[in-house]
Amino acid sequence: MTVTYTLEVSKARFWGFPKLLARWRGSIYRLMYREMIVFLVAYYLVAFIYRFIFIPETQRDFERLAVYCIEFTSVVPITFVMGFYVSFIVGRWWQQYMCIPWPDRVAMQISAYVQGADERGRLMRRSMARYLNLITVLTFQATSTVIKRRFPTIDHLVDAGIMTEAERAELDVTVTPHGNWWIPASWFSQIAMVARKEGRIHDDLHLKSLIDEMMDFRGLCGTIWSYDWISVPLVYTQVVTIALYSFFVACLFGRQYLYEWPGEKVTKSHDIDFYVPVFTIFQFFFYVGWLKVAESMICPFGEDDDDFDLNWIIDRNIQVSYLAVDQMYRRFPKLTRDVFWD
Amino acid sequence: MTVTYTLEVSKARFWGFPKLLARWRGSIYRLMYREMIVFLVAYYLVAFIYRFIFIPETQRDFERLAVYCIEFTSVVPITFVMGFYVSFIVGRWWQQYMCIPWPDRVAMQISAYVQGADERGRLMRRSMARYLNLITVLTFQATSTVIKRRFPTIDHLVDAGIMTEAERAELDVTVTPHGNWWIPASWFSQIAMVARKEGRIHDDLHLKSLIDEMMDFRGLCGTIWSYDWISVPLVYTQVVTIALYSFFVACLFGRQYLYEWPGEKVTKSHDIDFYVPVFTIFQFFFYVGWLKVAESMICPFGEDDDDFDLNWIIDRNIQVSYLAVDQMYRRFPKLTRDVFWD
Amino acid sequence: MTVTYTLEVSKARFWGFPKLLARWRGSIYRLMYREMIVFLVAYYLVAFIYRFIFIPETQRDFERLAVYCIEFTSVVPITFVMGFYVSFIVGRWWQQYMCIPWPDRVAMQISAYVQGADERGRLMRRSMARYLNLITVLTFQATSTVIKRRFPTIDHLVDAGIMTEAERAELDVTVTPHGNWWIPASWFSQIAMVARKEGRIHDDLHLKSLIDEMMDFRGLCGTIWSYDWISVPLVYTQVVTIALYSFFVACLFGRQYLYEWPGEKVTKSHDIDFYVPVFTIFQFFFYVGWLKVAESMICPFGEDDDDFDLNWIIDRNIQVSYLAVDQMYRRFPKLTRDVFWD
Amino acid sequence: MTVTYTLEVSKARFWGFPKLLARWRGSIYRLMYREMIVFLVAYYLVAFIYRFIFIPETQRDFERLAVYCIEFTSVVPITFVMGFYVSFIVGRWWQQYMCIPWPDRVAMQISAYVQGADERGRLMRRSMARYLNLITVLTFQATSTVIKRRFPTIDHLVDAGIMTEAERAELDVTVTPHGNWWIPASWFSQIAMVARKEGRIHDDLHLKSLIDEMMDFRGLCGTIWSYDWISVPLVYTQVVTIALYSFFVACLFGRQYLYEWPGEKVTKSHDIDFYVPVFTIFQFFFYVGWLKVAESMICPFGEDDDDFDLNWIIDRNIQVSYLAVDQMYRRFPKLTRDVFWD
Amino acid sequence: MTVTYTLEVSKARFWGFPKLLARWRGSIYRLMYREMIVFLVAYYLVAFIYRFIFIPETQRDFERLAVYCIEFTSVVPITFVMGFYVSFIVGRWWQQYMCIPWPDRVAMQISAYVQGADERGRLMRRSMARYLNLITVLTFQATSTVIKRRFPTIDHLVDAGIMTEAERAELDVTVTPHGNWWIPASWFSQIAMVARKEGRIHDDLHLKSLIDEMMDFRGLCGTIWSYDWISVPLVYTQVVTIALYSFFVACLFGRQYLYEWPGEKVTKSHDIDFYVPVFTIFQFFFYVGWLKVAESMICPFGEDDDDFDLNWIIDRNIQVSYLAVDQMYRRFPKLTRDVFWD
Repeated sequence: MTVTYTLEVSKARFWGFPKLLARWRGSIYRLMYREMIVFLVAYYLVAFIYRFIFIPETQRDFERLAVYCIEFTSVVPITFVMGFYVSFIVGRWWQQYMCIPWPDRVAMQISAYVQGADERGRLMRRSMARYLNLITVLTFQATSTVIKRRFPTIDHLVDAGIMTEAERAELDVTVTPHGNWWIPASWFSQIAMVARKEGRIHDDLHLKSLIDEMMDFRGLCGTIWSYDWISVPLVYTQVVTIALYSFFVACLFGRQYLYEWPGEKVTKSHDIDFYVPVFTIFQFFFYVGWLKVAESMICPFGEDDDDFDLNWIIDRNIQVSYLAVDQMYRRFPKLTRDVFWD
Repeated sequence: MTVTYTLEVSKARFWGFPKLLARWRGSIYRLMYREMIVFLVAYYLVAFIYRFIFIPETQRDFERLAVYCIEFTSVVPITFVMGFYVSFIVGRWWQQYMCIPWPDRVAMQISAYVQGADERGRLMRRSMARYLNLITVLTFQATSTVIKRRFPTIDHLVDAGIMTEAERAELDVTVTPHGNWWIPASWFSQIAMVARKEGRIHDDLHLKSLIDEMMDFRGLCGTIWSYDWISVPLVYTQVVTIALYSFFVACLFGRQYLYEWPGEKVTKSHDIDFYVPVFTIFQFFFYVGWLKVAESMICPFGEDDDDFDLNWIIDRNIQVSYLAVDQMYRRFPKLTRDVFWD
Repeated sequence: MTVTYTLEVSKARFWGFPKLLARWRGSIYRLMYREMIVFLVAYYLVAFIYRFIFIPETQRDFERLAVYCIEFTSVVPITFVMGFYVSFIVGRWWQQYMCIPWPDRVAMQISAYVQGADERGRLMRRSMARYLNLITVLTFQATSTVIKRRFPTIDHLVDAGIMTEAERAELDVTVTPHGNWWIPASWFSQIAMVARKEGRIHDDLHLKSLIDEMMDFRGLCGTIWSYDWISVPLVYTQVVTIALYSFFVACLFGRQYLYEWPGEKVTKSHDIDFYVPVFTIFQFFFYVGWLKVAESMICPFGEDDDDFDLNWIIDRNIQVSYLAVDQMYRRFPKLTRDVFWD
Repeated sequence: MTVTYTLEVSKARFWGFPKLLARWRGSIYRLMYREMIVFLVAYYLVAFIYRFIFIPETQRDFERLAVYCIEFTSVVPITFVMGFYVSFIVGRWWQQYMCIPWPDRVAMQISAYVQGADERGRLMRRSMARYLNLITVLTFQATSTVIKRRFPTIDHLVDAGIMTEAERAELDVTVTPHGNWWIPASWFSQIAMVARKEGRIHDDLHLKSLIDEMMDFRGLCGTIWSYDWISVPLVYTQVVTIALYSFFVACLFGRQYLYEWPGEKVTKSHDIDFYVPVFTIFQFFFYVGWLKVAESMICPFGEDDDDFDLNWIIDRNIQVSYLAVDQMYRRFPKLTRDVFWD
Repeated sequence: MTVTYTLEVSKARFWGFPKLLARWRGSIYRLMYREMIVFLVAYYLVAFIYRFIFIPETQRDFERLAVYCIEFTSVVPITFVMGFYVSFIVGRWWQQYMCIPWPDRVAMQISAYVQGADERGRLMRRSMARYLNLITVLTFQATSTVIKRRFPTIDHLVDAGIMTEAERAELDVTVTPHGNWWIPASWFSQIAMVARKEGRIHDDLHLKSLIDEMMDFRGLCGTIWSYDWISVPLVYTQVVTIALYSFFVACLFGRQYLYEWPGEKVTKSHDIDFYVPVFTIFQFFFYVGWLKVAESMICPFGEDDDDFDLNWIIDRNIQVSYLAVDQMYRRFPKLTRDVFWD
């Protein structure tokens, strides 16, 4: 639902970014409080067992394990792999945003090139605009859980007025096992051909222009579908996940407060006894939060706070495209002299 | 207001970059002197309490805490996450600059393709040029605090001559809940259609050319609006902020001068007593300054010294677009032989 | 065969990414269980020899070797080189996906611009569509093991109906030592010229449009061929491979449990005796898994679980392109008023 | 003046890159010998004071300071920030090269589309070509110190024959406070309109083609101007500079040879007494050289050895554009059969 | 000569990448065996002098030097700078491949748009195709050692049939001090103009299309020329080279086996005496190999095993372009019903 905060930090001032830490929607806390709780419960469970249940010999064994774990945590280079992985995910995230098709461009061309204020003209323009939205909705039905829930079936599209019954029938007739979201694009170009023959489109150039624009629009939908089909290779995600979670499993043991045994060399962790492992918690925030960045951006058409608000986009596009092709057809303000007219 | 300094370092010479350290506008000092003051006050407060208020036992506890904090500072890999984060922000910053629409291109085409030196011709050309600027201003009204302050309402646009009363009325009539900044683009293309019908535009190709250019112009505004709507995911910013600030909280304790206790192994920090933690200050400059780079670039349409000077851009665009479509219409120097003419 | 899992993690929730660890297809386990087995067998073999076969002096020598190896593992910076290498491979992987040509765009233009419902018109449209698919198949025959196995020879293409006998004969006549996958593109444009002369294409603009689109399509195939011809420089792959495998050879010795000899300074590895080198296994998962990411993506047209499903793509393209140019020619739903009609 | 050396290392052979170390023009030595001298003088000054002027107590204090400085040098992560910073600068450097406008493309179109071998035809073609160069020169006058020195004023342009007196007068008449480098672009399109009306340009398509190409040309100049106006944010450059120079200030003290005091734990630096701090010098070469990479590339239109040779570019462009539009107009070799003619 | 191996690793399987280590052509071994030999000879020379020539006091001095060198090797961060440098070179390498112009696209358009099966028609089409190849060859003559050796002078081009005598004479007549590789592009467009006037090209649109495509082709050649002219800044290459070679000079001393002196703290290197410095050799492979990646890719038009095979490309382009514009002119298979015809 898109957390927008840029304007709040439009001026780099004292207390700029830290101020953002107080937000809840789309925040790191909201994304990871469950993981944090699980981690802390496990941490204290281990602490309890070590301190109150183990006999001294077992405690000594545990301490050796703890030291071993500390060494491990310094060896796994999760920072680096996460840096590259998150960069990659963030890149895809923005590319996917840039693939969301907006019908404004095609709609304005429909309004400019498909002439005729009569009913047939209006029908053509409105149908063409609707097909653009129909392609979008059919695409997102397959790639976004949000839109899938809003329009679970084709029937819902007919009910919502995005499709007419005639179109639904035609769609059912066109049998293809390989996805039919692109079929309204074909209708669009066929209608454009008819409009050209009827002289409503005055020039072959304008016909071509309409078809090219629609093709670009359709291409964006195809790209969205591709981003959905071709996920980030599973093995990459698994490598990062294993690295991170094995790190924190090691922390469960390695970051425990260990007893000081008289006459023995004090290991690093013996220095001070905190009941709350403050810095381990910060590290957890930091690393798991970083992975959550990736997790919330890997599918930007979902339901995370930070995901693109597809419902709004679809509503906006339907409303705006009808407005552009119909109400605003041949309307513009009276030409008057501006204030700088000499 | 855009700090330009490239020409000063156009030659890599001795004392090139260091010379830049003496600047104040847009400088690191100006961006972070407040944070620095707060940090130093806190640092000396901790030092004061440790040295003069704590009893020896508490001092020993404090020293254990300090050693623990030093370890933490070496464990949090803020360098890496900040490197990737700042790279990402810097990338967006330049992409946003590249999205600022300049009307020169469309204006020159209007001047070339929309013929007629009579009043109606001039009206058309000037209106089309004005609509370009109007789209820009409406976009920045929503995305830039600077422009919002300059033109808080639509009325201010009318007063400033960017809109006429007729246009304002027409805009009010066109009801849409989803933003109306793009509506002048529709007027533009409708006027172009009329000009084509009146024969002022001689060819369908030129009509298409005008509409295509205007669409690209409008598309840039849409992208600016997108950069504003889709912020950098909040969780990413929070991760970086938490990492950095927890690092310096740890420094408050870990970088204190600690007493040497007789007969005890000297820890690293015991070596020398500086009243000013010189290198911690440098580190602070370095890390917080790095984050301030991100903070000042995350919203490049704001009021930071380094932000793009939108007021100048808008003034320039209005002046230049009128110049191109009106004063310079059909004007060019007399063709004369150049000096290389054989 | 393309492992798709984005929708499963569309919402960043507790247990999101870890859930993905339970998959087998396309997983890190499937890719590297053989390497893991070999590594573990070697590890235990070394352990067995050290503990039960070596005499104490040899054991002491072995221990020196082990310590030496540990140092080595901390010196080779495989993390960094792998980060850059994998980034580069992942970049190429997605670029290659984006080069897969989809005929939808050209097919719809064929349907719009090549007129005539008679047999010759249909023949032309169907032939042009078939040539698009033919270029694709000829390209992938040379660059993908999957398609090579499906269509080992030109005969198989004729059998599968992607080529006619006449086309096959013509292809045999056109002798060139430098690859003939692009020849159907030439046929395409020659047919388009004929259609223009016969008046089936109404305008030179539409002819140009068809040829341009087909050229773009052909260009994508050329790029795919380039990605195959110009591999990632061998030396880069070798550097990464040597770094990784020398690292794990060193681990074979350096990560062994070493005896504690009385009266001697305890080395790091003496602390605890694990029969299973847990963390070394995790490291192995992590590093070798990371390289496997590169290995499974370096040739995305192969048979890995994560590779693009070319068979499906080709089937889909053939079916869809015939559908678009033939069945859907001049078909579109009856224009009716939509629900928002005022 | 552009140091070209690629062909010398066209074959990766023994002694390939090291051979390049022997160059002086554009070399690291030339860029930083002054910094090196200053650093060494300071280094020996400190050494002299420490050894011969300080009394033992002060020497002990100095040694504590030195140890403290060594720690600092290992804490400041300049490597990382410089890696990202230099990457960013190098990226901009190449983008700026790619923005240099070459008139060849427009000139050949002028030659092809603007017909007429009479004087007026030649005048038009030559004027249009000259305007392209004029835009370029006006742009670089504002953004390059080299061109500014060559043509300090508009008068110099008239003298050099890049402008005629008539054009100069017209430019003076067109008053604008916001830069007038783009005005010749307007003249270009107005002349093109006139040529179209006179029938010298046969088709509206060719007119559009000329104007589009010229617009792209003008756009590149605008981008160059943007790169000049919008510098790399000052704060980023300052952060890197502070990091680097504070590092070497710390080295001045930390890398001194320190006396060994009897009965004291030998610190690292006590081991060996070099009169020349060889490795510190190498480090200096390395880090300062790395920053000098950025410094010499941040303004690629300057006077560094590695900067683009704008004078040559402008001379070449003027000569080549006249050649293309005038001498080569309607000239091409007699068509003869080639050797492969069957 | 282009080492292609992608298909061999098309399936990520056991023993995938390691299998590639057995190759010689284009391999790391071939690129660096000379450096390796020099390094090992120097290493054993130093070892010999230290062990058999030095007296004990000198040996102790040498050992101090060795320890000092070890410290240095851990301080120079060559990993990082090489990561960024190699990334940059690899990026340029692929961009240069993408700039290689392939004439297929223009040739097919010549075949489609330039009509006439008579000799003059054929002459025109063949000449236009030849000029494309001529531009390419003239470009690579200046930028590639391979092509320079194949065609050392213009005469060789005439002999090879890439140029006719008439063209050679015309080229000699056109005097320009600034490179004349682009002149055939001008001939191309002038011939196209003539063909348009003679009616061989039916439409201004097709004329424009041909000229635009040819311009893009010429632009690619210009970019190749730019990559040659504007090398990677010398100072960047020098920084990396100095870092790497100073590292290995330090290794020559620091990685020597040092004697253990009784009663002294054992330094790290005392542990084990290897006669072969195994891991130093691996490090050498790794780091020098990494630099060799850059060295073999910095000039991809050279003679390295991994360089693009320009001779093949030129032969292929000449053959294919004649085929497309001449033999295949107006040829396409008889239109027959395909197997899916209903």
